[in-house]
Amino acid sequence: MNIAVLGTGMVGQAIAARLVELGHSVRMGTRDPQKTFERGAGDEGFRQWMDANPAVKLATYAEAASFAELVVNATNGAGSLDALRAAGAERLDGKILIDIANPLDFSRGMPPTLFISNDDSLGEQIQRAFPGARVVKTLNTVTARLMAYPALLGDGQHTVFLSGNDAAAKAEVASLLRSFGWQDIFDLGDITTARGVEMYLPLWLRLWGALGTGMVNVRVVR
Amino acid sequence: MNIAVLGTGMVGQAIAARLVELGHSVRMGTRDPQKTFERGAGDEGFRQWMDANPAVKLATYAEAASFAELVVNATNGAGSLDALRAAGAERLDGKILIDIANPLDFSRGMPPTLFISNDDSLGEQIQRAFPGARVVKTLNTVTARLMAYPALLGDGQHTVFLSGNDAAAKAEVASLLRSFGWQDIFDLGDITTARGVEMYLPLWLRLWGALGTGMVNVRVVR
Repeated sequence: MNIAVLGTGMVGQAIAARLVELGHSVRMGTRDPQKTFERGAGDEGFRQWMDANPAVKLATYAEAASFAELVVNATNGAGSLDALRAAGAERLDGKILIDIANPLDFSRGMPPTLFISNDDSLGEQIQRAFPGARVVKTLNTVTARLMAYPALLGDGQHTVFLSGNDAAAKAEVASLLRSFGWQDIFDLGDITTARGVEMYLPLWLRLWGALGTGMVNVRVVR
Repeated sequence: MNIAVLGTGMVGQAIAARLVELGHSVRMGTRDPQKTFERGAGDEGFRQWMDANPAVKLATYAEAASFAELVVNATNGAGSLDALRAAGAERLDGKILIDIANPLDFSRGMPPTLFISNDDSLGEQIQRAFPGARVVKTLNTVTARLMAYPALLGDGQHTVFLSGNDAAAKAEVASLLRSFGWQDIFDLGDITTARGVEMYLPLWLRLWGALGTGMVNVRVVR
């Protein structure tokens, strides 16, 4: 499948590389591909990542979205709406938009707080801003490496959540998640349930802090 | 041990009955014991509960706290600070105060929002208001029945959290939780980590909603 991954950070890298490994064609969207490429040359991590993943092409948000049948929002939460506006509502219409971003506010020190919470969520804001996109919030509750390789922790016996208004879109995303290795995929309900998975982040960050590693997740016991 | 359970609702009932079953002496604190008793006469559930638990004596918040070596805050989050003020700071000084309450705001419909979150928590507010109490936040992430009988779900293979500034107090509370049947007790850190377990509630409420039962919890996979 042709997939756009918007965002070039840890999450975008992890998802893009995994998608290529699974046989998908991937365009990685960024504001200014030339600048990202040049910055990459000064960033050993991103430089190495680009060298290791030659199949992933850098593109503008709009080019990536235009190319894609499915779009992944892996940008910083604070920049997500701007990035998606740059991608263009008309290029998202009718497409599944997997939203992994989190509304984390690092401006008040660590651990970060949330700049949206309680009676709204970033997932909902994105769905409202792009009503033609089929938004599915998922994967935002684990560290990038686990998103792509859930089997690396506890034989994959832990849970990933789905929130979204479109049942068919959630079924397609669940199928993609299974191809990553996810076994326990929990459909929470409509996009308002994104509040739950976003507000879980402060607990997740404390689990990370207490254990000294982000290789941690929860399993829903029912 | 002599234990005060402040609050006569589902959580107070579940904890008080379990403590009696485990051999503790329990006073259940309420604003006005006579009114609670009379209201109980018109509330089949509470009437039956009182009849079934004759060892639990109703008392004022202050009487219960005075009697107790350990105090459990099982009041509604919105009334917790008032209830604890009525119990009296001098009767809480030096004692472990287990805080189970949640800052749930039902005034804007279902599901409830949180009236404290993000950069503060009810657990922290209680610790600040009663600096002499040894506050340990715990058990607030599961339904009342599971608090008392964790083995009823998944052979007890799920997690309860501890937040608090006093390591010795957390160790004592962990011991009490083990006597309830809790096997996986996760110390998140100081009382600021109460933000994590309180902000987890919106996710928990959605799990409940999706499954149609509160008999659900998470296990931390690490």
